[in-house]
Order: sequence, then C-alpha cells, then structure tokens
Amino acid sequence: MATFRNFKVVPQVIFGRGSFNQLDDILSKKRSNPNDRVVFLADDVFEHSDFKNRIPLRPDDLLIWVNVNDEPKTKYVDALRDQVRNSSSKLPAGIIGIGGGATMDLAKAVSLMLTNPGSSADYQGWDMIQTPAVYHVGIPTLSGTGAEVSRTTVLTGPQKKLGINSDYTVFDQIVLDPELIAGAPNPQRFYTGMDCYIHCIESLTGTYLNAFSRAYGEKSLELCREVFLGDCADADDRLMMASYFGGMSIAYSQVGVCHALSYGLSFVLGLHHGIGNCVAFDYLEEFYPEGVREFRQMMAKHGISLPRNLTAGLSESQMEKMTDVALVLEPLWENALGKNWKKVMTRERIRELYQRM
Amino acid sequence: MATFRNFKVVPQVIFGRGSFNQLDDILSKKRSNPNDRVVFLADDVFEHSDFKNRIPLRPDDLLIWVNVNDEPKTKYVDALRDQVRNSSSKLPAGIIGIGGGATMDLAKAVSLMLTNPGSSADYQGWDMIQTPAVYHVGIPTLSGTGAEVSRTTVLTGPQKKLGINSDYTVFDQIVLDPELIAGAPNPQRFYTGMDCYIHCIESLTGTYLNAFSRAYGEKSLELCREVFLGDCADADDRLMMASYFGGMSIAYSQVGVCHALSYGLSFVLGLHHGIGNCVAFDYLEEFYPEGVREFRQMMAKHGISLPRNLTAGLSESQMEKMTDVALVLEPLWENALGKNWKKVMTRERIRELYQRM
Repeated sequence: MATFRNFKVVPQVIFGRGSFNQLDDILSKKRSNPNDRVVFLADDVFEHSDFKNRIPLRPDDLLIWVNVNDEPKTKYVDALRDQVRNSSSKLPAGIIGIGGGATMDLAKAVSLMLTNPGSSADYQGWDMIQTPAVYHVGIPTLSGTGAEVSRTTVLTGPQKKLGINSDYTVFDQIVLDPELIAGAPNPQRFYTGMDCYIHCIESLTGTYLNAFSRAYGEKSLELCREVFLGDCADADDRLMMASYFGGMSIAYSQVGVCHALSYGLSFVLGLHHGIGNCVAFDYLEEFYPEGVREFRQMMAKHGISLPRNLTAGLSESQMEKMTDVALVLEPLWENALGKNWKKVMTRERIRELYQRM
Repeated sequence: MATFRNFKVVPQVIFGRGSFNQLDDILSKKRSNPNDRVVFLADDVFEHSDFKNRIPLRPDDLLIWVNVNDEPKTKYVDALRDQVRNSSSKLPAGIIGIGGGATMDLAKAVSLMLTNPGSSADYQGWDMIQTPAVYHVGIPTLSGTGAEVSRTTVLTGPQKKLGINSDYTVFDQIVLDPELIAGAPNPQRFYTGMDCYIHCIESLTGTYLNAFSRAYGEKSLELCREVFLGDCADADDRLMMASYFGGMSIAYSQVGVCHALSYGLSFVLGLHHGIGNCVAFDYLEEFYPEGVREFRQMMAKHGISLPRNLTAGLSESQMEKMTDVALVLEPLWENALGKNWKKVMTRERIRELYQRM
C-alpha cells in the first residue's frame, strides 16, 4: 500500500504590501503578558538601514543581527541558541527570522534547539526532532528558496550539509510582504529566484510528482517566467508567490540532480546555495534540456555571468568529499532518475560533472 | 493603513489516491488512549455502499449518517450536537466529516457547537466564535465547494443563510483522496465543480484581489478548464486540486454577484448551492461575459440543462425575502462592484434579475 506524506502546512499566512506593519499585533497575541520576550534574528545587512527601525521591538526583546556571509553552520546555530539561553532563564515567546533563506533557516534551527537537547548537528536528517519548537515566525526579505514553507532548515555540519527535516521545523506564521524584497540587489535576487525556478524544473520532471505538487509547481514556474522573462509591474509580489508555491510543491515532489550537486559545491567551496544551483544547472542540459535553455535566456536578460573553473584547483580529497556530499542525498537522485538511479549516477559520473564546473 | 487578513490555513493535508486508508493511523495519534471516541458524520448516500466498510471505526466510535437532501440548517446542527453530547459525557477526540460541502459544513459546525454554548444560529456572522472547536477532519467525496479549506460553514437559519465565519471553523486536517470523488453522479459532479469555476471567475474579476489570491485563482481556473473542457485521465485529481486552490484563493478575494444571488435562491427555494450558482450564473453575462460564455460551453459538453422559471410562482413576500438574503452579503457586492455598489445594485435590479430565473 502506498503511503502519502501528511503534509504540514504553515498554518498562518499574511500576504500584502505593508503587512510587515502588522507584526507587532501578531506577536502581541503570543505574549502572555505585554513584556514577554521575543527574539528577533535579522540579517545584518539591515543593521544600518532604516528598515531596522521598523522592527517592532518591545523593552525586553532581544534583537540579534546574524551574519550569513557563510551558509548556516550547526556551530553557529548552537552559539545563537546559547546566546538566547544565556540572556534569560525563560524560554522566549517567539523566534522571529527576518532575512533570506539562510536567516530563516537559522531562526527555524534556533527555535528547535531551544527545546531539544544537544547540538543541532545531532538532528541533521529526517524526523529526529522529538519536542515541538518555540513559536517561530518567518519573514522573507529575499524570495526563491521556499524556506518560508519548507519542513527543513539546511545546515552545514562537521560531516555533511543536510537539513533538520521535521514537521516541527515548519514556521507557525509567515509574513509575506513584497515590499521587503524590493531592495535586494540584482545578482542576489536572480540567484535566489533561480533556486525556485530550478526547483520547479526538477520537481516537475521528477518521478515523485502527483497532482498536488504539479499544480503548485506549474504555477510557480509560470510566475518565475513572468518575473524573469516578462515585464510586470508587480514582479516582487509574483516572485514572492513563486517562492511560496515552489515550497508548497515540495509536498509530494523532490528536487533533483542540480540540488544534489549544488550541496556538494556549497560544502566544499562554501558557495551560497542560490549561486551554487546556477553554477551546476548550467552543466545539466542532458538532464533538463528545456529548463537549462530557458535558464540561459533568463541569465542573458538579467546580465548574469557565472563564475567558472571553480573545481580546477581542488585536491583529490576535496573532490571525493564533494562527491560524497552529493551522493548521500538519495531521495533527490531517486526523484530525478528513478529507483535504479545508482546504475545511472556513479561516483565517476558525478566527479566528471564536477570537473566541468 | 491597509490591514491584511492573517489567513488561517488547514495545517495538515494529505493528498493521494488511496490516502483515505491512512485515516485510522492519523486519528490514532489524536486518541490519547486507543479507545478514545471519534465521531464520524458521513453522507447517508454511503449508508448502503461498500465504502461504508472502509470507515475505520473503533469500538467506542459513533458513526452518524447525515442527510443533506436539504442544505444544512442550524436546527439540524444543534440536533446533531445534542446527539453527540447525549451519547457520552466526554467530548469526542475528533469529528470527521465525510461527504460533499454540506456534510463537511455540518462536521465543522458540530465541532464548533460542542465547545460553544447556545444555538449555531447565534454564531451566523463573522468572528463570533470564542472557543476553539473539537479537532475536526474534512474528507471530501465531491469537489468544488472549497469547504475543505474555507473558514466558514454555510448554514440556513431561521432568519438567514449565512456562514459561521471563524478561524476556529477551519479543519485541523484534510484527507484529499481523488478515488473518493470518482463515484459522484454527473449532474451533481458538474454543479459542484461549477461552484469552483464560478467562484474563480468572481474572485479574479473582483476588486479585492491580490497576487496571493490571483495565483491560486488562476491555477484553479486552469484546472477547471482541463477537467470540464479537456480530456485528461486524471480529471478527479485535478478537480480535487481545483477545489483546494479555489478555496485557498478566497484568502484575499471574495465571491461576487452570482454567489450573492444564489444564496437567496437557496434560502427561499431550498435549491442546493451548486445548482443555485449555475441557475444564477447563466443570467449574469453583463457582469461576467467571458465566464458565462465558457460556462455554457461546459454545460453543452456535459449535457446539462438547467431548471427554468423557478421564481415565476413566488409570492411578493418570498421575492422580498430572497432580495433581503442576497443584499445582506455586503462584502460580495463590494468585491464585485466596488465601494459604491449600492448605487449600482438596487433592490429593484436584484429583483429584476431574480424574475428572469
């Protein structure tokens, strides 16, 4: 008997230009008394911006500027968790992540690690979290990753790049305010948007797909095309919806070859997820011919040129490690290539693909 | 400052052919001990079917066959609530609705009225429920109404046809199994599907729309076209997704002229919601020209002929009542016709529209 995932959906969604202004009101309902402490984890790109003053801090709240120059590491999550713990003997009433996918992942992970013992590295995998997280809210300021709806928080640990996949990871509330993504600089906006585009191509051509994920994936892809090949006035609104739909489509689908290879690039080269996907995708025409051609049109329209020859100087052990990181992601390979994927995708073939990048 | 609805989304969704088989497993997690009582409200069309034996009853569970030949009435909700209460001194661990929109609405209403005092007629309106409902699950066996995701349960009371609109109305879990809608007879399947189609036309042409609701509405409309004008093998899967997306699109949109008039028809003539919508929509070419033309193509393809001259024999007071029921639905008129809708849509004009039907 086939079994289907009982998909955990973010239960509260607010969408609209200016909806960020309702954050204080939303949080006040979660503070049992008005001075209950809330912890904000915000991307430090906003530390010296006007936006900083719009964060609805109350006297006992804690605002931590997080740095995501590197992809989130388990060590960083543990340190942030300790910082929150050391600042008060009481659990916070909420953890609020404001930023791109990396910042939202940090917020998810910290909210989980405040109620679960040990290091976040102990939970990299599937359904290992035992205790519900602290109430946590995601507020994207970049769109494309789908981190606002996903049941994972992607972390780089001492051994692997792998998410904490759990229903408890899912945000309790998201605030989708298209005004917040308007300021993202072009290359970063493009790479993050392509995370969504590539993810849709991978899931729509995958073997796991059903009508639920297809409906979300097809609409997300359409929105990506409107945003990156069209010319629409409300592109930020559409990109935000593309990301949300892309994330929802993962319910009964998976990403594929590109995401698997991109994980290896990130682990060994420290490449950010969005750009890592783009670097890998450009070499995957044999797997995703139409998708790669359209992706190149999008790159041309947005004046993007990708870094090249990234793996040329790597040592033997680095190449091996990169291959290991990619190979461990079995569901991705199975989705892309079917149950017999191991016959198609050998270590040698992965390595050969990496050598071109 | 514009404020946006903080939209309550059904937090657990399972979608797939055969996913109904996982119901016992899902419910077992909600029973604190294995014999905790669950109450099933199932459409009595299944009373003598094989499907009956697939309902995962445990020894202390209560299975109530509900009759929805008439649209759900507040009196019926109160009687069902009393029946559940009188059968045990403990609140049930869950209320499970299995059927079309009417049955799902009964399940939602009973789950609310088990924890809120008085009659369900006292709560017809917006945000009047004070106490969370008993855990409740929706399992559609007909698709189109969007009742599986909506925050309303539409009831006919002594004074009005109006929903109990509340975040607490929203199901805690839905089971979307396309196999369950395969047996619906053609006219009923068509009328219910058209509830979704018409709803999309009304919301996509309305004044309330934003990018969130547009994305859901557009995809829902596309799926409706594939199902009712196309020829696809997985039509049941797509129809189920059309209904889900149509319901989600209501977050930041509203229905319009057709639904408002249809409510009046149901109240006075006892017409079911789906057929009521179809009867009204066929006379609304001036408001929805393209939608009505496409709707007629769908009717032709599916061999549907609508009842006519329904209002010819009505008394003066019945015509007045019908007009009153339609006029009270202010958000629907405002969405369709803008803030100054009262100048456009007078009592006389509504009456004139009804007289043609």
